[in-house]
Amino acid sequence: MEFKSLLAERTEIMGASAIREILKVVSEPGMISLAGGIPAPESFPMEIIGELTERVIGKYSSRAFQYDLTEGFMPLQEQLAVLLQERGIKVDPCDVNIASGSQGVLDAMAKILISIGDKIAVEAPTYLGAISAFNPYQPEYIRMDTDDSGLIPESLDEILTCHKIKFIYLVPTFQNPTGRTIPLERRERIADIIIRHNALLVEDDPYGSLRYHGTDIPPIKTLAPLNVVYVSTLSKIFAPGLRIGFFTGPELIRKWLVLVKQGTDLHTSTFNQALAAEYLSGGYLKKHLPVILGLYKPKQAAMLNAIKRYFPKNFKCSPSDGGMFFWVRGPGGVDMEKVYYKALKRKVAFVPGKFFYTKEGEGIETMRLNYTMSSENTLERAIEILGDVLKEI
Amino acid sequence: MEFKSLLAERTEIMGASAIREILKVVSEPGMISLAGGIPAPESFPMEIIGELTERVIGKYSSRAFQYDLTEGFMPLQEQLAVLLQERGIKVDPCDVNIASGSQGVLDAMAKILISIGDKIAVEAPTYLGAISAFNPYQPEYIRMDTDDSGLIPESLDEILTCHKIKFIYLVPTFQNPTGRTIPLERRERIADIIIRHNALLVEDDPYGSLRYHGTDIPPIKTLAPLNVVYVSTLSKIFAPGLRIGFFTGPELIRKWLVLVKQGTDLHTSTFNQALAAEYLSGGYLKKHLPVILGLYKPKQAAMLNAIKRYFPKNFKCSPSDGGMFFWVRGPGGVDMEKVYYKALKRKVAFVPGKFFYTKEGEGIETMRLNYTMSSENTLERAIEILGDVLKEI
Repeated sequence: MEFKSLLAERTEIMGASAIREILKVVSEPGMISLAGGIPAPESFPMEIIGELTERVIGKYSSRAFQYDLTEGFMPLQEQLAVLLQERGIKVDPCDVNIASGSQGVLDAMAKILISIGDKIAVEAPTYLGAISAFNPYQPEYIRMDTDDSGLIPESLDEILTCHKIKFIYLVPTFQNPTGRTIPLERRERIADIIIRHNALLVEDDPYGSLRYHGTDIPPIKTLAPLNVVYVSTLSKIFAPGLRIGFFTGPELIRKWLVLVKQGTDLHTSTFNQALAAEYLSGGYLKKHLPVILGLYKPKQAAMLNAIKRYFPKNFKCSPSDGGMFFWVRGPGGVDMEKVYYKALKRKVAFVPGKFFYTKEGEGIETMRLNYTMSSENTLERAIEILGDVLKEI
Repeated sequence: MEFKSLLAERTEIMGASAIREILKVVSEPGMISLAGGIPAPESFPMEIIGELTERVIGKYSSRAFQYDLTEGFMPLQEQLAVLLQERGIKVDPCDVNIASGSQGVLDAMAKILISIGDKIAVEAPTYLGAISAFNPYQPEYIRMDTDDSGLIPESLDEILTCHKIKFIYLVPTFQNPTGRTIPLERRERIADIIIRHNALLVEDDPYGSLRYHGTDIPPIKTLAPLNVVYVSTLSKIFAPGLRIGFFTGPELIRKWLVLVKQGTDLHTSTFNQALAAEYLSGGYLKKHLPVILGLYKPKQAAMLNAIKRYFPKNFKCSPSDGGMFFWVRGPGGVDMEKVYYKALKRKVAFVPGKFFYTKEGEGIETMRLNYTMSSENTLERAIEILGDVLKEI
């Protein structure tokens, strides 16, 4: 009995994931993987985690293990309002809601807004996890142009003029996959455009705190407060295994996001929300963030230096001041999936960039390189090997 | 800016929740609530929770805080395979998957199987949380008849003969809202019927371990292993705030459930899964379950005795050997929503039964009474008051 005939239309469309297939070999022994997108385990505040759990159990007792409101655990909502304030976003604690990772917000956004065939505007390239959150709701993707400074505002303006767009999805800071950041003056123009078109922007900001150079740039949310659902997470500055995402945005949208979350998972783990509340209220994030930055900054530098040294000069690396990735574009005609299979034989893995595009045929000559999971030495060796492979082709 | 015009068709249909509205007053000070459906906080194993967290941190270190596979945290999958074995369900650890509460499985089931207008067969009455998981996918509900022994097999047979049903949703043991259990011989007939019709059953079993009288009855999964997705949770035997549900079922269905879960929340909290694995592997559940049963059994007895003593004789309480609820049906003509408002004035709340029916006009004369959250004395007082109100109408 296979039950295949029972599948919904959306499921039949989803099909197998090509990227999942090609990445299956990445965890083989001896492989150096630049393919992942996950934080280094050394970046977790393991030395205080025992203390945090004790504080939570002492302070909240059984409340930390009971069902809680879908909206979020109030002590965490209060702390996140403070964190958002530091990012320039003024909200009442009640207006910050908790999700099971940012992923939970992206799923819920699509669930409340997308009927089959509705249009979403996404960057080319864009975050793969967002695509897998949106796909089941069968949207049509409208791709927006980008360059080394991220989204090109004129492309957004044109799309909002020509299409009825349900929402725009952007990762403005240290984007996944490109590591790029939209500079302030572009953000201002983007804010003007979405306000003028009465459009709704989902601003996904998982990496904003991971800045190794330069100074912070305010979220677009601060420039167009009524038009933006701002989404962030503690996965990169605390621990991803706790699955704590959060969001704030227009009240009507938030109300619906909470309502559909109730049907999806009732609420996010109370205990983990309480741990996160203690992490923030106890000042641990402030003490620990420099440790995380100190860990990643030299890795980023090591990878960039190695790329400059070992990659052929016609392979261009996008500038990036933070996050977890570098993005390299080869000359036209390079097929990075072929490079991938050649590199695998030399025990180095990465993600061919084409998987981050919603339009077939784009990004064939691009690659995403992660630097958070390997040591500086390993990163240098891996990039040297990749450089050799690139020279061979 | 309200963005109302952006809502998807499914969202417009969902509308406001009547039950949410009427239950808003339940948490007012001085109210005795028999309306909830949550475990008593005293049922949580608080005395060992600190020890469990220490063991998890010692044993798994940063792994418990890192991203993990969507399928589940393997040490927990292994323990759940043992738990399922004890319930008569033989599975490999790889074939048990983890979800963010049972709710996560119900959402995913509907997501992979329901196109707009597809039919689901549900009991009348049925679990409200399932309805809120299924609703966004816009199914048509086909209601199946029940009596004091739960689902009437002939009703299921007839429905499978007349309709193309995507799946059947059942809570066979200590059902929410009725507390009823389907006896073995009915389960055998139900198993025969679904096998004969090649149908898919979602067997939701959150309360099975909470048995205060009688002996365990095997899940329908054991009688029709190829036709059943068996769903359960640790919420009632460990702690609901950790949001750990689990499921096993036909491979094709499981594969899709895992794939859509990846887009919904990536995976369930690693730390909480690790805590659950330690709770099970350390033998804590075996030691603690009798404590939970010892807590609830006298509450159940107190409520039942009070119902017998104080309710008018023409109000019938369904027999129940476990779980968290009693279900009372008044004579035709009684409007239990009116009783609800009268009872509120006397500071007692419950849930009018009509909210558990998918068809308007059914269950007007019914009520659901929860006994896990109040002391025996309070339960007796509340039922006495309710009895007075019932006699007045």
